[in-house]
Amino acid sequence: MNFLEKRIAKDGIVKPGNVLKVDSFLNHQMDIALMEEIGREFHRRFADQPITKVLTIEASGIGIACFVAKEFGVPMVFAKKSKSINIEGEMYIAEVESFTHKNKNQIIVSKKFLGSEDHLLIIDDFLANGCALQGLISIAEEAGASVEGLGIVIEKGFQIGGRVIRNLGYRLESLAIVDAMDPETGTITFREQ
Amino acid sequence: MNFLEKRIAKDGIVKPGNVLKVDSFLNHQMDIALMEEIGREFHRRFADQPITKVLTIEASGIGIACFVAKEFGVPMVFAKKSKSINIEGEMYIAEVESFTHKNKNQIIVSKKFLGSEDHLLIIDDFLANGCALQGLISIAEEAGASVEGLGIVIEKGFQIGGRVIRNLGYRLESLAIVDAMDPETGTITFREQ
Repeated sequence: MNFLEKRIAKDGIVKPGNVLKVDSFLNHQMDIALMEEIGREFHRRFADQPITKVLTIEASGIGIACFVAKEFGVPMVFAKKSKSINIEGEMYIAEVESFTHKNKNQIIVSKKFLGSEDHLLIIDDFLANGCALQGLISIAEEAGASVEGLGIVIEKGFQIGGRVIRNLGYRLESLAIVDAMDPETGTITFREQ
Repeated sequence: MNFLEKRIAKDGIVKPGNVLKVDSFLNHQMDIALMEEIGREFHRRFADQPITKVLTIEASGIGIACFVAKEFGVPMVFAKKSKSINIEGEMYIAEVESFTHKNKNQIIVSKKFLGSEDHLLIIDDFLANGCALQGLISIAEEAGASVEGLGIVIEKGFQIGGRVIRNLGYRLESLAIVDAMDPETGTITFREQ
């Protein structure tokens, strides 16, 4: 097991309905030393790519993406989930369905911050059905930017998102892929990578 | 002018309605080197306090709070804006009105992550009417935690929030306090601190 799988096995909590709670270290309370290690690991995996910006989506992707961007020495841009009165003018827009919140959101990125000169590393904490990632890819494509890779902290391997994104030809790296979870025993089965 | 005031003067954009856009470096695209400098500056200002956790609110507070927490070597906890199905059980709850989005949200923090043993530094990007900060303070008080300080990146000095929080007796440090903005000329007047 790598450092992340070990941490998930230790502190992740399996709940009925294929819910994996990692809120003690990843997406409510954040263990900053772990975030830094995640940042270094994604940098190691995508160091061969000419990344100019890290792109993520609010809210729980932001902390992780910050530390990835720090390693690459590039800015981080996060897509916002609803139109704010502070964002006016030209925007890239995509429609995204949320598994967690059971609703639909528009996600938006100002056109000022993404363009055809950009080489993007897209980062998020979870990958399940892939809707959020597809929204971010759609925004990158609208901007004419190159998606050099996608980095996910935890992929739910028993849901369709990972397969869809890889079948589209993208280089997707997940630090942990959960193939099965048992809410009775709390056992988490990781895919060998 | 300090490093942040200089950056705001250079890249901030004044819009009618007392809107200050800093989305090119602070709350949509994030300049990570600036975030790190903000983290170091808040650590310098609150180094005399026995901080055990940094508390913020999603979304744009998260990146800043991460780098503050990194300097203190403590976890960061962010309040969430709506009930997620992934958060169950006991929660601290406060009601918060958003100036930016012109709506009301419940903000929540799991009781697992804040308790009477905690000494908190509360961090946010903007302070205007102070509703978000008061919500976070209310959650800290419900937890019985000590609020050792509040760190704000940009305070709108012509709005009431800063005065309210300081009058409540809290130690509030704002890296930049904007006393006036002129959308015609783009001039931003900072308070001498």
